[in-house]
Amino acid sequence: MEVHGNPFSTSTQRVLACLYEKDVEFQFVNVDMAGEHKSENFLLLNPFGQVPAFEEGDLKLFESRAITQYISQEYNDKGTQLLLPGSNKTMAVLQLWKEEAHHFNPPSTKLVFELHYKPFFGMATDAAVVEESEAELAKVLDVYEARLAESKYLACDHFTLADLHHLPNIQYLMGSSAKKLFDSRPHVSAWVAVITARPAWSRVLDMQKQKL
Amino acid sequence: MEVHGNPFSTSTQRVLACLYEKDVEFQFVNVDMAGEHKSENFLLLNPFGQVPAFEEGDLKLFESRAITQYISQEYNDKGTQLLLPGSNKTMAVLQLWKEEAHHFNPPSTKLVFELHYKPFFGMATDAAVVEESEAELAKVLDVYEARLAESKYLACDHFTLADLHHLPNIQYLMGSSAKKLFDSRPHVSAWVAVITARPAWSRVLDMQKQKL
Repeated sequence: MEVHGNPFSTSTQRVLACLYEKDVEFQFVNVDMAGEHKSENFLLLNPFGQVPAFEEGDLKLFESRAITQYISQEYNDKGTQLLLPGSNKTMAVLQLWKEEAHHFNPPSTKLVFELHYKPFFGMATDAAVVEESEAELAKVLDVYEARLAESKYLACDHFTLADLHHLPNIQYLMGSSAKKLFDSRPHVSAWVAVITARPAWSRVLDMQKQKL
Repeated sequence: MEVHGNPFSTSTQRVLACLYEKDVEFQFVNVDMAGEHKSENFLLLNPFGQVPAFEEGDLKLFESRAITQYISQEYNDKGTQLLLPGSNKTMAVLQLWKEEAHHFNPPSTKLVFELHYKPFFGMATDAAVVEESEAELAKVLDVYEARLAESKYLACDHFTLADLHHLPNIQYLMGSSAKKLFDSRPHVSAWVAVITARPAWSRVLDMQKQKL
């Protein structure tokens, strides 16, 4: 099993966190984000030219959420149980809370760009984008606050892919001024503390430190 | 089975197209988009206040892609086969091409808003947003053109959810100046012709006509 990516890419981190949770052996192939992801060779792995890409025998995948779903099903009996056991109905509930891609992801990704990547590369943060994205994210976190008041994790009472997919953006935002959006909501704040403390996630952060 | 939505909402259309393909009986509950989707009663069905919402017995779902996945699995033996039969590996390939949510959906949704909804409501189209979104969508369609040169449909050689999810935005864009982006790519153009001609999709369009 090979993962082609970069430990500073949030999509790569999603796949790495999943592999460490499942305790599956894999080889990591570092992709230089200065342009290697747009090279002819990499476009054979992912025609969209984005990390990560995934290979296992004949199977070639891209899209972090498709990869984490595959790993969780294929290695269902290893490591952490990241799916909901049981019927289509329970899986549908997981699926629903996995649609963070449409609610949490767009504003939080904009904030990670404005508050983390831009300062890192010496670029100026756009205050209007930050304000608009924070307002949008606050509404999503209000829904999460209500959900987490009645359910320990997003999909059910154990950690699943629905929670795991949030880790990369949350990690960056907890080191930014957007931290207040999480801290001001007690159930969200407790959930953030629990999911960012997972040993598998620490291993992803360790991979970053080795690169710095 | 109850679907709460509006036949002019693209997310509702995704679920309706799926139900007609699967030939499953359901009750349609029209939601007035003038504000009913933000009402207290509707927020009990979907805390994000967006159509569609779905109920079957005790099961309450929202998020169109979670709903279509559930219907396709639960009624796997009815109507059109919208999933890939077989192993986790083939399902992973379907999952990957279902991630249109991250590539096709953002620019095409912006174009539907600028080129369809804004003129419909007498608002001025923003030429800069159109230009930027068309450039973004063109890159996605280049990847589709290459994919559809080697595969009849996005995920495999039969129609699946990966194709179906594209229908609502494509339908609106084929009636706009963005049509050229599809027409200029022969494999994409042939695929659009085939998927928009499906009888189940005509039934969704008929529901719109009845409302006008």
